[in-house]
Amino acid sequence: MSATVHSLGRTAAPSLAPMTTLVAADLNHVNQVILSRMQSEIALIPELAGHLIAGGGKRMRPMLTLACARLLDYAGTRHHKLAAAVEFIHTATLLHDDVVDGSGLRRGRRTANIIWGNSASVLVGDFLFSRAFELMVEDGSIRALRILANASAVIAEGEVNQLTAQGQIETPEERYLEIIHAKTAALFAAACRIAAVVAERDDSVEETLDAYGRNLGIAFQLIDDAIDYASDGATMGKDAGDDFRDGKVTLPVILAHARGSDADRQFWRDAMEGRRVSDEDLAHAKRLLSATGAIDDTLGRARTYGQRAIDALGRFPSSVAKAALVEAVEFAIARAY
Amino acid sequence: MSATVHSLGRTAAPSLAPMTTLVAADLNHVNQVILSRMQSEIALIPELAGHLIAGGGKRMRPMLTLACARLLDYAGTRHHKLAAAVEFIHTATLLHDDVVDGSGLRRGRRTANIIWGNSASVLVGDFLFSRAFELMVEDGSIRALRILANASAVIAEGEVNQLTAQGQIETPEERYLEIIHAKTAALFAAACRIAAVVAERDDSVEETLDAYGRNLGIAFQLIDDAIDYASDGATMGKDAGDDFRDGKVTLPVILAHARGSDADRQFWRDAMEGRRVSDEDLAHAKRLLSATGAIDDTLGRARTYGQRAIDALGRFPSSVAKAALVEAVEFAIARAY
Repeated sequence: MSATVHSLGRTAAPSLAPMTTLVAADLNHVNQVILSRMQSEIALIPELAGHLIAGGGKRMRPMLTLACARLLDYAGTRHHKLAAAVEFIHTATLLHDDVVDGSGLRRGRRTANIIWGNSASVLVGDFLFSRAFELMVEDGSIRALRILANASAVIAEGEVNQLTAQGQIETPEERYLEIIHAKTAALFAAACRIAAVVAERDDSVEETLDAYGRNLGIAFQLIDDAIDYASDGATMGKDAGDDFRDGKVTLPVILAHARGSDADRQFWRDAMEGRRVSDEDLAHAKRLLSATGAIDDTLGRARTYGQRAIDALGRFPSSVAKAALVEAVEFAIARAY
Repeated sequence: MSATVHSLGRTAAPSLAPMTTLVAADLNHVNQVILSRMQSEIALIPELAGHLIAGGGKRMRPMLTLACARLLDYAGTRHHKLAAAVEFIHTATLLHDDVVDGSGLRRGRRTANIIWGNSASVLVGDFLFSRAFELMVEDGSIRALRILANASAVIAEGEVNQLTAQGQIETPEERYLEIIHAKTAALFAAACRIAAVVAERDDSVEETLDAYGRNLGIAFQLIDDAIDYASDGATMGKDAGDDFRDGKVTLPVILAHARGSDADRQFWRDAMEGRRVSDEDLAHAKRLLSATGAIDDTLGRARTYGQRAIDALGRFPSSVAKAALVEAVEFAIARAY
């Protein structure tokens, strides 16, 4: 993965720092809401939730809500509860994902399902999800509730879609994009979109921020998919090769399969159906991905979506917030390089 | 279980028929909402959800919403979506419960987790839960949303509480009642309470219907707990002795343990910690429950809660709806006899 990010026109390494600086004060408030609202008299709930919530997450989605609100010069505090709700929805999804995938490592730490068991992860996920809706109800905006309830349903639909595609090497690229639209991009889009709701801006501003978040989310997921074949657990904070061993048919695999010889295609079929899960098989998979240009082209598609995210912001005048949102896209892409 | 239901003053066998007749037309509409809103392009979703939703459930909770609305002379249709939302929340909870408990049989049929796997049950549960909130958002009442979001959080909290109590024979009766308040009674209470919201009645009517539903829910759960030691799978539609084999410390067990000899107490400890799960052990457990009066007294407590549910309705003038709601309580109790 040696390509440079031509289209984004930046030479210094992009960073999340402008965004974290921009939203630091607001994010403090959001973190207070998160910490106070994950409490319960049932001690296992804050213990398990805290493991994940305090465990090194970047708060990417709530930061997007806060940064988009800054972009719109919103000066209130309504978005603090909504941003916390977004993080709770995300956390609930992660808890259930790790149960579904049988994951053992996330962000470099053992997953909750390994420490406390699948049952606890399922039920604490349900609690956080309910708590998210309680936070939205406290805000009282039916419009924000509609956006986040819809995103939640789309996410769950996408997860089921992914489950039924698991191991199916013939998954078309289009179906794969549908899945990541649903399971990743929908919440990015909603996180950005609700900023327009609290700032009381019109539909077209909502749609613009939705497009920014959605395209960023797809770029983000495609980069993750590529990284899974490139890094080791120590640098990435999740088990490298997890997707391969779980038989997750991600875009790199779809491209390598489509471009491979008959023997290669048989290899991918065997791998995705769970018959090739050794370290040697993973090494062979990486060689095929490299030889077919599947990783480079996955990154290329990610850059295209990243560019669309940046272009969506074109209508807004230059500002510190806009620059931070642009650089967040560049950072998401640059993680792969 | 030969005691008669003295306190409820009825001689003929009570039935749900008055309630089902009362709400039949409304329930048809609710069923249409349920069937249309469990659809998805992802075929596994309606397939799995339909297994449970079409699989012989009594629609007890939505019927309560509808019957309570009739009690208040509400003549609109707003409660159809909310009643469907209540059923979706209930169904999502059942799907996740069966995963947590590892159940194999519910309502006389194989459970979804056995047929489609735990992952599918978790994710389709998440979908139905999100869909429930979409339905509430469509209704647009923040008050109804608050009631159901709160009930959902309480349910999840109760499930985690129950999980941490699993196998702990020293669970006090008070803690056990807290658990069933949360995991069963909260949704019964919310189902009834939202009828007052759509009928635009004041807080005291809301609280009255909440009390009716909450006490009915507790009675319902206590009866279920007793039945688990009394019936076989064929008559009850779930695996008899499931609670025993799962180490679920229910009220009958709490009472029998508290009243037993040292040897009996050791038996219960062994059983709840998973060291006594044979059919002979279950038969021995039943003998201890009978000898200590634990089943009779569980049913006695259920009757007390049932009576409180009926008394909560005292403020309303006589009507067909009131009689149906009273008989629904009597029916819930009479299932055990």
